[in-house]
Amino acid sequence: MEKLKKYISVKDEDHFYHQGAVELLIFNFLLILTILTIWLFKNHRFRFLHETGGAMLYGLVMGLIIRYVTKSPDVGSGTVYECEKLKSGPSTLLINITNQVYEYQYKREISNHNVNGHQGNAMLQKMTFDPSIFFNILLPPIIFHAGYSLKKRHFFRNLGSILTYAFLGTAISCIVIGLIMYGFVKAMVHIGQLEQWEFHFTDCLFFGSLMSATDPVTVLAIFHELNVDTDLYTLLFGESVLNDAVAIVLTHSISIYSPKENPNAFDAAAFFQSVGNFLGIFAGSFAMGSSYAVVTALISFMHLTKFTKLCEFPMLETGLFFLLSWSAFLSAEAAGLTGIVAVLFCGVTQAHYTYNNLSPDSRMRTKQLFEFMNFLAENVIFCYMGLALFTFQNHIFNPLFIFGALVAVFVARASNIYPLSFLLNLGRKQKIPRTFQHMMMFSGLRGAIAFALAIRDTGSQPKQMMFTTALLMVFFTVWVFGGGTTPMLTWLQIRSVLVGVDPDEDLKARAASQSAPNLDKNTTKAESAWLFRIWYGFDHKYLKPLLTHAGPPLTSTLPEWCNPVARLLTSPRAYGDQLKDGDTDYIINNDELTENYESSAHIPVPAQDSTASTQATGKEDIQEGDLGLGGYKLQLQHTAGQPQKNSLA
Amino acid sequence: MEKLKKYISVKDEDHFYHQGAVELLIFNFLLILTILTIWLFKNHRFRFLHETGGAMLYGLVMGLIIRYVTKSPDVGSGTVYECEKLKSGPSTLLINITNQVYEYQYKREISNHNVNGHQGNAMLQKMTFDPSIFFNILLPPIIFHAGYSLKKRHFFRNLGSILTYAFLGTAISCIVIGLIMYGFVKAMVHIGQLEQWEFHFTDCLFFGSLMSATDPVTVLAIFHELNVDTDLYTLLFGESVLNDAVAIVLTHSISIYSPKENPNAFDAAAFFQSVGNFLGIFAGSFAMGSSYAVVTALISFMHLTKFTKLCEFPMLETGLFFLLSWSAFLSAEAAGLTGIVAVLFCGVTQAHYTYNNLSPDSRMRTKQLFEFMNFLAENVIFCYMGLALFTFQNHIFNPLFIFGALVAVFVARASNIYPLSFLLNLGRKQKIPRTFQHMMMFSGLRGAIAFALAIRDTGSQPKQMMFTTALLMVFFTVWVFGGGTTPMLTWLQIRSVLVGVDPDEDLKARAASQSAPNLDKNTTKAESAWLFRIWYGFDHKYLKPLLTHAGPPLTSTLPEWCNPVARLLTSPRAYGDQLKDGDTDYIINNDELTENYESSAHIPVPAQDSTASTQATGKEDIQEGDLGLGGYKLQLQHTAGQPQKNSLA
Repeated sequence: MEKLKKYISVKDEDHFYHQGAVELLIFNFLLILTILTIWLFKNHRFRFLHETGGAMLYGLVMGLIIRYVTKSPDVGSGTVYECEKLKSGPSTLLINITNQVYEYQYKREISNHNVNGHQGNAMLQKMTFDPSIFFNILLPPIIFHAGYSLKKRHFFRNLGSILTYAFLGTAISCIVIGLIMYGFVKAMVHIGQLEQWEFHFTDCLFFGSLMSATDPVTVLAIFHELNVDTDLYTLLFGESVLNDAVAIVLTHSISIYSPKENPNAFDAAAFFQSVGNFLGIFAGSFAMGSSYAVVTALISFMHLTKFTKLCEFPMLETGLFFLLSWSAFLSAEAAGLTGIVAVLFCGVTQAHYTYNNLSPDSRMRTKQLFEFMNFLAENVIFCYMGLALFTFQNHIFNPLFIFGALVAVFVARASNIYPLSFLLNLGRKQKIPRTFQHMMMFSGLRGAIAFALAIRDTGSQPKQMMFTTALLMVFFTVWVFGGGTTPMLTWLQIRSVLVGVDPDEDLKARAASQSAPNLDKNTTKAESAWLFRIWYGFDHKYLKPLLTHAGPPLTSTLPEWCNPVARLLTSPRAYGDQLKDGDTDYIINNDELTENYESSAHIPVPAQDSTASTQATGKEDIQEGDLGLGGYKLQLQHTAGQPQKNSLA
Repeated sequence: MEKLKKYISVKDEDHFYHQGAVELLIFNFLLILTILTIWLFKNHRFRFLHETGGAMLYGLVMGLIIRYVTKSPDVGSGTVYECEKLKSGPSTLLINITNQVYEYQYKREISNHNVNGHQGNAMLQKMTFDPSIFFNILLPPIIFHAGYSLKKRHFFRNLGSILTYAFLGTAISCIVIGLIMYGFVKAMVHIGQLEQWEFHFTDCLFFGSLMSATDPVTVLAIFHELNVDTDLYTLLFGESVLNDAVAIVLTHSISIYSPKENPNAFDAAAFFQSVGNFLGIFAGSFAMGSSYAVVTALISFMHLTKFTKLCEFPMLETGLFFLLSWSAFLSAEAAGLTGIVAVLFCGVTQAHYTYNNLSPDSRMRTKQLFEFMNFLAENVIFCYMGLALFTFQNHIFNPLFIFGALVAVFVARASNIYPLSFLLNLGRKQKIPRTFQHMMMFSGLRGAIAFALAIRDTGSQPKQMMFTTALLMVFFTVWVFGGGTTPMLTWLQIRSVLVGVDPDEDLKARAASQSAPNLDKNTTKAESAWLFRIWYGFDHKYLKPLLTHAGPPLTSTLPEWCNPVARLLTSPRAYGDQLKDGDTDYIINNDELTENYESSAHIPVPAQDSTASTQATGKEDIQEGDLGLGGYKLQLQHTAGQPQKNSLA
């Protein structure tokens, strides 16, 4: 009989495994459905529902089914047991139940008012991820991919504006949302809701900061598909990427803002402490991320790729690249910094230096790998958001708060975009036109980051109300604004660059538009020229030769007394086959470099560099931003010798 | 103060996130170290330590450090709490500790004797994976990759032998190990060890079945690198792949073997029940896996790839392929079958049909993706094995049992290989030479599957002792036999095919050896010809036209009355550009087909099929089995028109 009992317990355990399989299967099923739908939509040029919107919709339906169809009562899960012996919750708990010891693992703290919500459905609980999965597994590939695929040339041309929107704009948005929400909260207290809760101004600011993370993935996909103006694309993409980083650090700083006395009153010391925290965490994460990338480029790729032959083993190269980039994220998290920010700047730096050291095979592998991971992670998150509306068990729907958030988000977006655009236009030679401003205003979608920040802490009632509201805001903005992008573009007449172009004709048309004189190219260049002249000079003379095969040999750029060191550190390829080096510069485009050198012409520019870059210009937009969803395949082999070679499959 | 407390609790939660980051960082660090080491070894042609051996070694050192350096006492984790109210362990437990409710999640059952082992080190517990991670996340990509990259031609030529070794051999091995271990257990009882335990013959058989899963990844990597005889490679690879499936199902059947009365006596009914279980689970899993692949080929790729243009969106295609293959695994698990077996046959079938429907871009993407996942998963598992020796807290080292296992494993391997080879040689025209038999005997390494099966259940003392022993057997075989492969090959003079060939010269030499007359090609062909003539006739006439672009149109193969249906189901490409179809057959090689048709010549063979296959013969070995670690890149574009084009990067 003992034996029998053991077998039964084995079966029970098996049951647990199968449960895990069922949950994963549900996600797989949703993702398969989403992919089929996207394909259908793409095939019919139907642009009103983006894949993320579709994923969310399917998640929603599945959540509804799980909630109201499955009913698997779980014995004892709604009951609270007393334990007087313990002072705090240990991470592992051993419990003796009828002479059998069971091990339980700490999951989370639950407020007393939520206990009732825990009755019944085990399936719902199983479908609820640990929020750390979002932060450690799902977000990093998305953010890294954003950094890795940033369109360098256009990005740097608009860097001033992007930084303004991202830093100043996000701060404005956070404060405006915080203030408006505080007004609504006061009103709610006044009419008798929220009586028993504490809802401080810092909570409102917390909500403001998490709702400030925009995620216009839908809009950007449509822009990409329709070839909307590159400057608008870059402004929006750059803003959204950096804005996520700012919003995450802001949320973190606000959550650790702890005034000594009355938490409701303004405490200058604590405020400056928070600002200091913000700056410290941001700078620390930035340093962590980029130094990992530099280490990747320097240690592994200088000694391995550059001098010897790691590039003969593309699998090892890809593996190392992947692991070091992920380590940047994890190290930052482990050090108490913000991993997302670290991985973002790691991606940017990897693209700038390491990418040039990789073998052609590894370039393609890393690019496709991160594209694929980004694609999967994004759709998983949006599926999960749909699911969460029904499977999360502690929603607090407050119509007034939701309405307030809706108002606040739009007022905040408006007071971010319009005043800042006005200020920026004072300084910009090539103004940001009104239509672009409207489009940016319209593209203030909320997405994965806002959701991830909100779900990270759902312990208290205010936090739960915020989570519910944030979730609804994501639904609303993705479906309504995402769906309305194409009509809006038509209405604002922004599509004029390539209206009605057949996507199959994309490539040629784009190549043609690139070779046509680009008006704003020379006018905006000066905007941030003085800063970048210094940076590029340094980068081209010292960093690039040190970290990649490109650029002049260090022996010619460093002072003479450094020669022994310089000779040691310079790649042999930097002397000899410079002709071959030019064409390895795909992601980083030497355009600005040559432009700058034309003005400060005391450094000899290798001739093939400039030719390579002119040819690369036409190809750049094709290479980058290609989400693998277009009709052309990725072609990263050495092709610079063949001008405008169309890589249509 | 309330506020402050909340912030502290937020910080506590943050602490939990960072913990997760630290653990992942440790794994990343180990993997990075492993990659650097592999690269170093590869660079110096040092073949005594394979990457998996290195990963295990680093894991071991890290485990040692974690065990004896970190000491983070966890309050209350060693204490067992009583709970009289509950009858069984719920999946979620809510506990009230000083007015704060904490949620705990069920982890596992613990035997009373293990409770003391749970004191102290929280880090050790954190580094212990949930075994379901092995089964749901890490094993599927490895097994799928094995199936996806099976060398079809050589595999089918040796199918009879492979099936014999895999099914009959594994059964023999299981029984022999079981019997020997039972002897040792009896001896242990006799000398006074194991007095208080129950250790039945079924437990011994369980150990026998899990130790029968061989994993000669090290050996195969060296074979691949040294271009050892293809037949030997195929015999070993095919045996190890199928043998895993057999061992897993066998373990499962034995674990649910439940004789009604005395568990120690032989119960014929229960035995046949177990045999029935085995056959049912195996057949069910096989059906599940291959039907998913057929569904992928049929539904998605017939209607999408074949007729319309999913192939224009390689990302969607890759995503769908990935998700459907994983779903095969998960569905089998959810249905109570064996996911590993399902995913293996799913891989084989995907390679046979779906692969031909994919766009060239997607072929490369899927191939590289699965290669990369296989590489990472394999190294993670071996790292973890190293770690587990020190981080797993309930090891039971019993020298006699370990010695017994060592003896049993070798006796079992010998009684598997030699008698079966003798029997097979009676039927085979091209005999398996003595040296090959010795090499196969020598290659009986234990690895990931044995470990995963052993760690799946470590609840009771016998199971813990088995786990410890299995782990040590893996260490021993991987290091000693893995390291001894190259000397052994030299000693047995098997390397003669290409002794001392420079790996850079690999490709040409291999191509040359392919074009040289292959003696065994015609002699072994007849071995399984009658069965495969039927299968290939059916496959070529009905399945391939239905599921891929290749083969004759269905309208010509189906009876006339089926014509309307046939016309509907046949790809338009099947009529017109058959010339182009031949070259899409890379993974599946039409060699056998044409051979068979030469004998049973009443079916018109398209002329280009046979030419394509002759050309593909030389390329096949280059395409397949390329683990991305060689010096040549994967080239999967349409190249059949160019005979023997070397794809050296």
